[in-house]
Amino acid sequence: MVPYRSMTQEQLLAERDALQKEYVEWKKMGLKLDMSRGKPCREQLELSMPMLYMDSLNDMLDEKGIDVRNYGQLAGIPEARELFADMLGVLPKEVIVGGNSSLNMMYDMFTRAMLFGFPESPCPWKDCGTIKFLCPVPGYDRHFAICQQMGIEMINVPMTPTGPDMDQVEKLVAADPQIKGIWCVPKYSNPQGITYSDETVRRFARMKTAAPDFKIFWDNAYCMHHLTDHPDQLLNLMEESKRCKTEDRVLMFASTSKITFAGAGIAVFASSEKMVEYVKQLMNIQIISYDKVAQLRHVRFLKDINHMTAHMKQQSSVIAPKFRAVLDLFEEELGSLGIAEWTKPNGGYFISFDAMNGCAKRIVGRCMEAGVILTPAGATYPYGLDPEDRNIRIAPTYPPIDELLQAAKLFCLCVKLTSVEKLLEQAAEA
Amino acid sequence: MVPYRSMTQEQLLAERDALQKEYVEWKKMGLKLDMSRGKPCREQLELSMPMLYMDSLNDMLDEKGIDVRNYGQLAGIPEARELFADMLGVLPKEVIVGGNSSLNMMYDMFTRAMLFGFPESPCPWKDCGTIKFLCPVPGYDRHFAICQQMGIEMINVPMTPTGPDMDQVEKLVAADPQIKGIWCVPKYSNPQGITYSDETVRRFARMKTAAPDFKIFWDNAYCMHHLTDHPDQLLNLMEESKRCKTEDRVLMFASTSKITFAGAGIAVFASSEKMVEYVKQLMNIQIISYDKVAQLRHVRFLKDINHMTAHMKQQSSVIAPKFRAVLDLFEEELGSLGIAEWTKPNGGYFISFDAMNGCAKRIVGRCMEAGVILTPAGATYPYGLDPEDRNIRIAPTYPPIDELLQAAKLFCLCVKLTSVEKLLEQAAEA
Repeated sequence: MVPYRSMTQEQLLAERDALQKEYVEWKKMGLKLDMSRGKPCREQLELSMPMLYMDSLNDMLDEKGIDVRNYGQLAGIPEARELFADMLGVLPKEVIVGGNSSLNMMYDMFTRAMLFGFPESPCPWKDCGTIKFLCPVPGYDRHFAICQQMGIEMINVPMTPTGPDMDQVEKLVAADPQIKGIWCVPKYSNPQGITYSDETVRRFARMKTAAPDFKIFWDNAYCMHHLTDHPDQLLNLMEESKRCKTEDRVLMFASTSKITFAGAGIAVFASSEKMVEYVKQLMNIQIISYDKVAQLRHVRFLKDINHMTAHMKQQSSVIAPKFRAVLDLFEEELGSLGIAEWTKPNGGYFISFDAMNGCAKRIVGRCMEAGVILTPAGATYPYGLDPEDRNIRIAPTYPPIDELLQAAKLFCLCVKLTSVEKLLEQAAEA
Repeated sequence: MVPYRSMTQEQLLAERDALQKEYVEWKKMGLKLDMSRGKPCREQLELSMPMLYMDSLNDMLDEKGIDVRNYGQLAGIPEARELFADMLGVLPKEVIVGGNSSLNMMYDMFTRAMLFGFPESPCPWKDCGTIKFLCPVPGYDRHFAICQQMGIEMINVPMTPTGPDMDQVEKLVAADPQIKGIWCVPKYSNPQGITYSDETVRRFARMKTAAPDFKIFWDNAYCMHHLTDHPDQLLNLMEESKRCKTEDRVLMFASTSKITFAGAGIAVFASSEKMVEYVKQLMNIQIISYDKVAQLRHVRFLKDINHMTAHMKQQSSVIAPKFRAVLDLFEEELGSLGIAEWTKPNGGYFISFDAMNGCAKRIVGRCMEAGVILTPAGATYPYGLDPEDRNIRIAPTYPPIDELLQAAKLFCLCVKLTSVEKLLEQAAEA
């Protein structure tokens, strides 16, 4: 195909008419497909069913002999703390194993910060005036939604192939004590699949912050979620921070939502021992203990980090073909047209798609009109405002592959149609 | 036995010496017993083991066909909302089924109130100046601890045999808009086992409150937890409130912590549809969904309200003999001495014990010295301050019956010894 920008006005008009006809045919099909959220598919969930049937559930005692069916063990059962310490590269005493949602653990951290602050806070964040947070963009909508609900002002920081633009980050956090933290998905970032470089991690560890209680929300949601045999490597922020004596700023989160069950996994928080003790002391008023039957079940099923890695290979064998199919289709349909760019991640749950500026909303709207639901355009930016209106998050894991390909084909059509229209508009304006 | 108050000085001294000798013998035994918390015992937990082995877990879809292993259903699966609506006497749309902890659901309600307020609040509670809460005493230490952590001023209201002193409650809430709520355990109250009378419930529904956003935290933790064949009846606060158009003030909580597993049950919140919608809209930022595998498991095991009632009869058959044994021993050891009073509950998890004024701390300390841990004296009052230093909460469910009786015997001894000392002190002062 000829790149769209090389087409004459006449060629563009002909292309538009052809695409419009095609789109009308698609609408008639009455599709009902959903590519909006990063949800595991049924085959992925089936992989963890043995977790529910374990014989060893006859034995309901944890390794300290405490009955997991009763109250107690605020920070989680010891074997779960050990397993997830291995996963995150920290010590068991630096881990709290929680309920089924890491989002909820992050949210709780914000309510604590707002109402009580951290040990090193000048005051609870609610009393600090306007708090600000750095948000690498594009990023995860649910992170941004927490800040928005809390009334925390969000400042966009552009992502680069090595992570957030650290020149900007360092400059901002050094200058403004109202900037209390940053959201990070350091490995296979949501939505771009970028893994932070060693240098980025080191700069996070050593950077000077004007706020004494600056916190890095290190949401390592995809730490185990490789899609290829040459996985990305992420430097251990906790180790680097300890070297710089900044480990209190590190708040790590992860969960098994995309390792076992998305509705019934377990979540984990890790930080310095000092922070863990501080959080435990506040948590002690909030809850007596989390679901330790779920914790024990997970440990007995996942066993150890090697077994977990093997389990994640099975997960990958289910979803990697879906990523490949979509990426191949994008290449075939859009590769030569010069109207879009997209990421080819080594892991995680998403493909990040950049259309021509000013086109994302129209593309998503068109898909929806034809029965394919995508993540709303703008969702990857704070306040839902993509200043260029170009980023779209593609979530290929959930639909069966035939439906996925159908949805992706429609998507490509909508991208092409909207781009041609845009080029014609631009020509008319010029 | 002669009532202690009728004894001569000489008799008291002789009694003290005999009791002291006995106490020294007990200390030598090196006991290690715990009667401090309302925990179910192992036999109770075993009753719910079939929940973990259900064949029907092969089918992981809820009644709407949604896979419980995946994200979704913020308010819980429909069949769980129906079951717990029946339990609480409300409609399914008035119910949110949560995670494993009703304490956490109550705590979350406070963080929401503090940070955002309720729809009818003049402002978030954090911005309302000093907020106050009414605390019927004696009551549940974990309720009081939430208020204390949030910096909410607690006002004691005495319990009566029909519930909190409603003359005081009505007067206080009508006069002071800073009083934003009250803690209630309306059935088999913690620790006294009192069930609120119909008139008390009706007065809660119709009372005028100066605060437009006054909330009744109706912790119906023991709604199914009868100990006898003539269970107490609690009037339905939701129905009564709807009659008075005050249903937005009703925040009901319950859990299966003492129905299935104390560490791995499920919790439930109920209120007016308006409040449920308000809470859902805030919760939508906090969590994607709670553990619906646990919810489905519970519904398939507990089935319906009749089956739940039968299950609770089995629970009662395990713990009622423990209550009877302790109460019989108290009667035998202390009944004629005129130095203590205690409750004989029809349900719940506790016996409330009132020693002579100024004796509770010493009794609990003496028990601990001899190896029996009780709930700390004062714990049943806000800030841990029992103004009379007389109330002690006895939790008979957890220890095996032989250990329980041993602990209760030591307890009676400590009560007697401390009371004799007190009487001798009083005589010396007079």
